[in-house]
Amino acid sequence: MTVCLGVDAGGTSTRAVLLRPDGTCLGYGRAGGGNPVSWGAEAAARSVAAAVSAAVAEYRRRDSGAGPGPLALAGPAVMAMAGGSSAAGQESWATLLAGAGVTGGVVAESDLLATFSSGTPDPDGYAVVAGTGASAIRVAQHQVERVVDGLGWLLGDEGSGFWIGQQAVRAALAALDGRGPATTLSTAVPAALGVPDGDDEADARGRPEVLAAAVGALYRMRPVELSRFAAAALAAAEAGDAVATDIVAQAQQRLLHSLATVHRSGHHGPVVLGGGIARRLPTLPAGVAELVRTWADEPPQVVTVEDGTAGTAVLALRRAGFVVDNPVFDRLIASLALRTATTGQPAAGR
Amino acid sequence: MTVCLGVDAGGTSTRAVLLRPDGTCLGYGRAGGGNPVSWGAEAAARSVAAAVSAAVAEYRRRDSGAGPGPLALAGPAVMAMAGGSSAAGQESWATLLAGAGVTGGVVAESDLLATFSSGTPDPDGYAVVAGTGASAIRVAQHQVERVVDGLGWLLGDEGSGFWIGQQAVRAALAALDGRGPATTLSTAVPAALGVPDGDDEADARGRPEVLAAAVGALYRMRPVELSRFAAAALAAAEAGDAVATDIVAQAQQRLLHSLATVHRSGHHGPVVLGGGIARRLPTLPAGVAELVRTWADEPPQVVTVEDGTAGTAVLALRRAGFVVDNPVFDRLIASLALRTATTGQPAAGR
Repeated sequence: MTVCLGVDAGGTSTRAVLLRPDGTCLGYGRAGGGNPVSWGAEAAARSVAAAVSAAVAEYRRRDSGAGPGPLALAGPAVMAMAGGSSAAGQESWATLLAGAGVTGGVVAESDLLATFSSGTPDPDGYAVVAGTGASAIRVAQHQVERVVDGLGWLLGDEGSGFWIGQQAVRAALAALDGRGPATTLSTAVPAALGVPDGDDEADARGRPEVLAAAVGALYRMRPVELSRFAAAALAAAEAGDAVATDIVAQAQQRLLHSLATVHRSGHHGPVVLGGGIARRLPTLPAGVAELVRTWADEPPQVVTVEDGTAGTAVLALRRAGFVVDNPVFDRLIASLALRTATTGQPAAGR
Repeated sequence: MTVCLGVDAGGTSTRAVLLRPDGTCLGYGRAGGGNPVSWGAEAAARSVAAAVSAAVAEYRRRDSGAGPGPLALAGPAVMAMAGGSSAAGQESWATLLAGAGVTGGVVAESDLLATFSSGTPDPDGYAVVAGTGASAIRVAQHQVERVVDGLGWLLGDEGSGFWIGQQAVRAALAALDGRGPATTLSTAVPAALGVPDGDDEADARGRPEVLAAAVGALYRMRPVELSRFAAAALAAAEAGDAVATDIVAQAQQRLLHSLATVHRSGHHGPVVLGGGIARRLPTLPAGVAELVRTWADEPPQVVTVEDGTAGTAVLALRRAGFVVDNPVFDRLIASLALRTATTGQPAAGR
């Protein structure tokens, strides 16, 4: 049996897909976070090995004709992760895969391209990927031609989970400090930190006690963990809080601005939206469609995807020399949806 | 001879003042950064010891009547530093002073109160302190009654050196990324980082090469070091760059907003401006005066000070039970100006 392997090593989970050249998913595995930057090289390697082992185990369970030896891939396994093509140690990844029962080379790919490829088999188009970070990309002939933003929490990532979370926390603290307008975030943020509400009049060296306690708790976290508070901002916005609504609206506007920046006149194609924040901004697809209408006369195609899982499988097929046309792509999405139905939403839908 | 000691342990330098109860400065010493948070406890202690030793040496050189034994203080030495009254290890500070030739207790004080006290002997008033961080305080009966902002680089410090520096760097990178308006900062920031200008068309994985190189260099720094770029923003604003001008104007507006927030109706007094950024915002004193005019009918008193050196001396006199009236204060400022004339501007002027 000819098989390919795609691995999406994300910040919160790692997913591995074994598939046939016709797009049929043969095995699917899921494990913990696989990003070496967030989790350390060792923990990331363990997650990748666990996800691949689980995919191989499912494949062997379902296909009794599979021989006992290691599974030989038809082409290199594609490993998608943030920072993508710069990921070092590709040889050690191959050793790792061998341990998980798979032989073949490994190529690293951009997680942004994997997200785009989860939404469409088309060679050209765009993606807006907003999770903890945020980027917009332009894809031409199956390659990333241009990236806008994605500069990280300190320097960019406008409209990302970190961006929203930091804005929300700063707004909550400014309200407690008397500098900013009242917002339900000034209750939600201390509550999320486990800081008691306290008495507004209570005083810690010239500051409200709850403010001093929240600031102390926040500086004990890693800065990037402020992205946790994006959820509080989205919830507060949904409940009608004016400050949170403004933050969320500004985030969407910045994502749209990055997409507008990455657009090249005359370059058409679907726009894929991916990442935990892009999927949670309720009016983002409509906003993107409106923007795309200003570019061309053709009706905008806007696709929202769960993650890069299907895309890594698509990239693995292409690396092995197989053509991924619409029927192959649709078969992949449908068969992957069956496998992932117990763990959540399917990877993509068009 | 009855003597008191004040030590201003700042982020970039430490200053020690030995003085008589009538305000006359008897000895002045200066050394490297004395903030334990920025420099580590050991380096900070060395700076404090060096500054005090230098002040004692000057005192002994000038006053041949001083006995050979250690100098007994009339009251506790006042040590001003960020985080002030929470500074731990006060006993070890006393041991340290003994090593520098001074005996007596040590009390820690807020660097914000020291800055206020460098500008006025009045019991009531306000201060805006903007260096790397930014706070506004209300002083009542010689004590800090309320602090607004000063929440640190990640959570607040609006209008501070860090705030300006981060805005400037983000604007520079956004311009290079095609997301933001053109600004001279997009040349100044890479130049300050030692990143070659490069070819706009050159490409590092979908990004301009100069952008990728600048981002890499910036993430190799500690986040708080972005405050270094405040100088570039101020220079660009002075040269007429619109983006930098807007950043600097917004910084000033946020400092004024913190001051407006800390104001309590009916609470009058001078407004002291201190810290490297407050002193470099050319229209801040006029902006403060305009704000104060909306509070009361009396003419606004706005004082700009260099640092908290004179203020620690004032606080040391008060801790020892001496009254600091206008003649004492003026004598301190004048005699300190003579001592510091070779190293820069006097500590304060009214």
